[in-house]
Amino acid sequence: MNLATRRLFSPLKVQTSLSLRTTSTSTSPFARCNSQSTQAKTGIVLMNLGGPETTDKVNIFLNRLFADHEIIPLPFQKFLGPTIANVRTEKVKKLYQSIGGGSPIRKWTTMQGDAMVKYLDEKSPETGPHKYYIAFRYADPLSDEAVLKMKEDGVKRAVAFTQYPQFSCSTTGGSLNELWRALKRNKLEKEFEWSVVDRWPEHPGFIEAVADRINEGLKTIPSEHRDDTILLFSAHSLPIKVINRGDQYVPEVAATIQRVMNHLKFSHKYISTWQSAVGPNWMGPQTVDVVKKLGKRGQKSVLVVPIAFTSDHIETLSEIDIEMAEDAEKAGIEHFRRAPSLNDSPIFSKAMGDIVMEHMKSGVLSSSQYPMRCPGCTNEQCRSIVNPIHHEKPHFRFYDCDCLSLRGHREKIVPHDIIAYLQPLEPPLIPPYFR
Amino acid sequence: MNLATRRLFSPLKVQTSLSLRTTSTSTSPFARCNSQSTQAKTGIVLMNLGGPETTDKVNIFLNRLFADHEIIPLPFQKFLGPTIANVRTEKVKKLYQSIGGGSPIRKWTTMQGDAMVKYLDEKSPETGPHKYYIAFRYADPLSDEAVLKMKEDGVKRAVAFTQYPQFSCSTTGGSLNELWRALKRNKLEKEFEWSVVDRWPEHPGFIEAVADRINEGLKTIPSEHRDDTILLFSAHSLPIKVINRGDQYVPEVAATIQRVMNHLKFSHKYISTWQSAVGPNWMGPQTVDVVKKLGKRGQKSVLVVPIAFTSDHIETLSEIDIEMAEDAEKAGIEHFRRAPSLNDSPIFSKAMGDIVMEHMKSGVLSSSQYPMRCPGCTNEQCRSIVNPIHHEKPHFRFYDCDCLSLRGHREKIVPHDIIAYLQPLEPPLIPPYFR
Repeated sequence: MNLATRRLFSPLKVQTSLSLRTTSTSTSPFARCNSQSTQAKTGIVLMNLGGPETTDKVNIFLNRLFADHEIIPLPFQKFLGPTIANVRTEKVKKLYQSIGGGSPIRKWTTMQGDAMVKYLDEKSPETGPHKYYIAFRYADPLSDEAVLKMKEDGVKRAVAFTQYPQFSCSTTGGSLNELWRALKRNKLEKEFEWSVVDRWPEHPGFIEAVADRINEGLKTIPSEHRDDTILLFSAHSLPIKVINRGDQYVPEVAATIQRVMNHLKFSHKYISTWQSAVGPNWMGPQTVDVVKKLGKRGQKSVLVVPIAFTSDHIETLSEIDIEMAEDAEKAGIEHFRRAPSLNDSPIFSKAMGDIVMEHMKSGVLSSSQYPMRCPGCTNEQCRSIVNPIHHEKPHFRFYDCDCLSLRGHREKIVPHDIIAYLQPLEPPLIPPYFR
Repeated sequence: MNLATRRLFSPLKVQTSLSLRTTSTSTSPFARCNSQSTQAKTGIVLMNLGGPETTDKVNIFLNRLFADHEIIPLPFQKFLGPTIANVRTEKVKKLYQSIGGGSPIRKWTTMQGDAMVKYLDEKSPETGPHKYYIAFRYADPLSDEAVLKMKEDGVKRAVAFTQYPQFSCSTTGGSLNELWRALKRNKLEKEFEWSVVDRWPEHPGFIEAVADRINEGLKTIPSEHRDDTILLFSAHSLPIKVINRGDQYVPEVAATIQRVMNHLKFSHKYISTWQSAVGPNWMGPQTVDVVKKLGKRGQKSVLVVPIAFTSDHIETLSEIDIEMAEDAEKAGIEHFRRAPSLNDSPIFSKAMGDIVMEHMKSGVLSSSQYPMRCPGCTNEQCRSIVNPIHHEKPHFRFYDCDCLSLRGHREKIVPHDIIAYLQPLEPPLIPPYFR
């Protein structure tokens, strides 16, 4: 498991077609915002991890997660994946119960998409009408649902727009590969012309939105402690072995943080930390360890800033707001707060619109970085674009990839990882020596 | 050993006083640029690692390095430090022989300091006359020499100016702690009023200077391969345990790289890599591994960009230009080049002047980050400033530190590290399993 979440972990077989049928008649965002199959000139696919909307969807969600060989390569994946998912289901259900009974990511993505499309139709009528399509990796709606709906709406020009600001093979990389496979599964490879917004770690609108949320968070701290507050920028951690392959997520997260602090004119002390590590050898320092150490040292106020996701999810609502808050209290931190997630930030939904608009005006296929596979990558599918738009910028040489394998890739499995996945959430079964 | 160099590793006792006496009669930069003891209003201490100017100074250099308990904590340091230094001396001498018989860092720092002072006297006469003083951590001139010369010159206002763009406890942190100890050793704690330029990872002049050197480097690649060149930004690696303590070097290096690429309008594909790791569990991906993998994949042109040091040194002239160039050739890379180090870049020496000038005009003691000790730090001396200037900006609360311990701190030693230090430079003695 990489950037996918440690809290998210059913012995059921992955039921893509079943779930598709289920959700197509449910309260899908399309049912609300795209209820009429009006023709759309531009379709924007919002890609994210997703989360179970209700606790009875935890099991299928975990099954999908542990079936993802690209992100969580396991030996005997068809057997071990469901086993691990099963082991974790009850515990993860309780976590979702503690945050209101389900993940709010679909709700927030729908609000963001609605606002973005409204903004785009107004500011860029020449590329409109615009429609957005949610494509979650492990929850409904999946990529299959998105592309089928796009076909129904008559979309021709399509933008795959990652909702992860910083690129990692474990997040955006996996989502894009799945999107291309969904096109192949549904025989829609030639239906749309694609370009990709694969990263936007320093987009000024995004930076402004984060800074604004930090200021909101700071207001919840008593004024006498506000200036002394330490900002803990927290991103989901990544295994060192993924970093050593050449994944550029860590430096891109760092770049975001530095831009935000520049925007804030370095008003506070800050630190880059990493949360939700599974097992040993993940990027650090771990957010929770930093919280405990700062408390021990006498720090009285801390503001945690989620920096790599754009909506609330189990890692903000449970891991930070419940678990870390308890640890912080025990460590003596009196004012432990979190900056609100971007969620319904109007600055952010405008930024989303600007990102898409600037991308389409630029005429490029993707960022100049996207075509560069990690030096240690063994997955031939990575960094492909199916049926790309005609691109005017000649320096964007591109893999027009025809090598869509559904088998995924093989890589060395470290026993530590399997032990880590199999363990209940806390406390860890792994002896500290192996960490 | 942290950011100190793996190539740099004598059974002699550390001879601070002896070396001081030796160099005070040698070709010190002061002998050239500060030959007359004219009064200086502002003294600027240029802090860096330093390197042996001639091969007969390798032994004393390595002794100092392995006696540094703050950076390379060893058990029985007084015995084991000299032993390790001894084991490595002959090998390191050969490395310096291969790059012309010694480190050029003093030459470049002298040129940079001369140009900076000239610029400052012209642009900021109200704080002049300015003088610079080199304070190397392990080579002459040491901090003791710098502060004694400052006293002789009548300096009152002093700026400790790190020559490491990005802050790490292993580099700037150790140099500052040593500067404060040198003041104490020489009973000069109340002689100067200090402020600190402790980091400048995103200074526009520095970014422009690096971008300019990249463009120079690209010109050495045949035009038909120039656009296809991958930029490998390479910084000295850091042990994961230092990163987990909360050291912010990795995110600051990443911030520099992102600024440089912004300046270059993302003209090329690029990747952040880390060189000179000693033993297992250091930040990656390793530059040499990336070079080999890119070559294997068919990449024909690569430009390595040193991003964390401002002058040539053994890691650029030997590790990149000789060792990696051989690996690159074997891997099939036809055009393996390095962007020239900043060395005598006029853009860079102007940037140095601007950094000091902006710092003095701001009236701050340091960056807002400097006072924040790493959450996992056990060294009470860290982040202190001896006899700081009166600071106008009230939000800069500061440790006016009176806790200068000469004993350094204690931390857990991992046996891997000692094995790594004791091994000859290549090949490693450590079984891959432990890496």
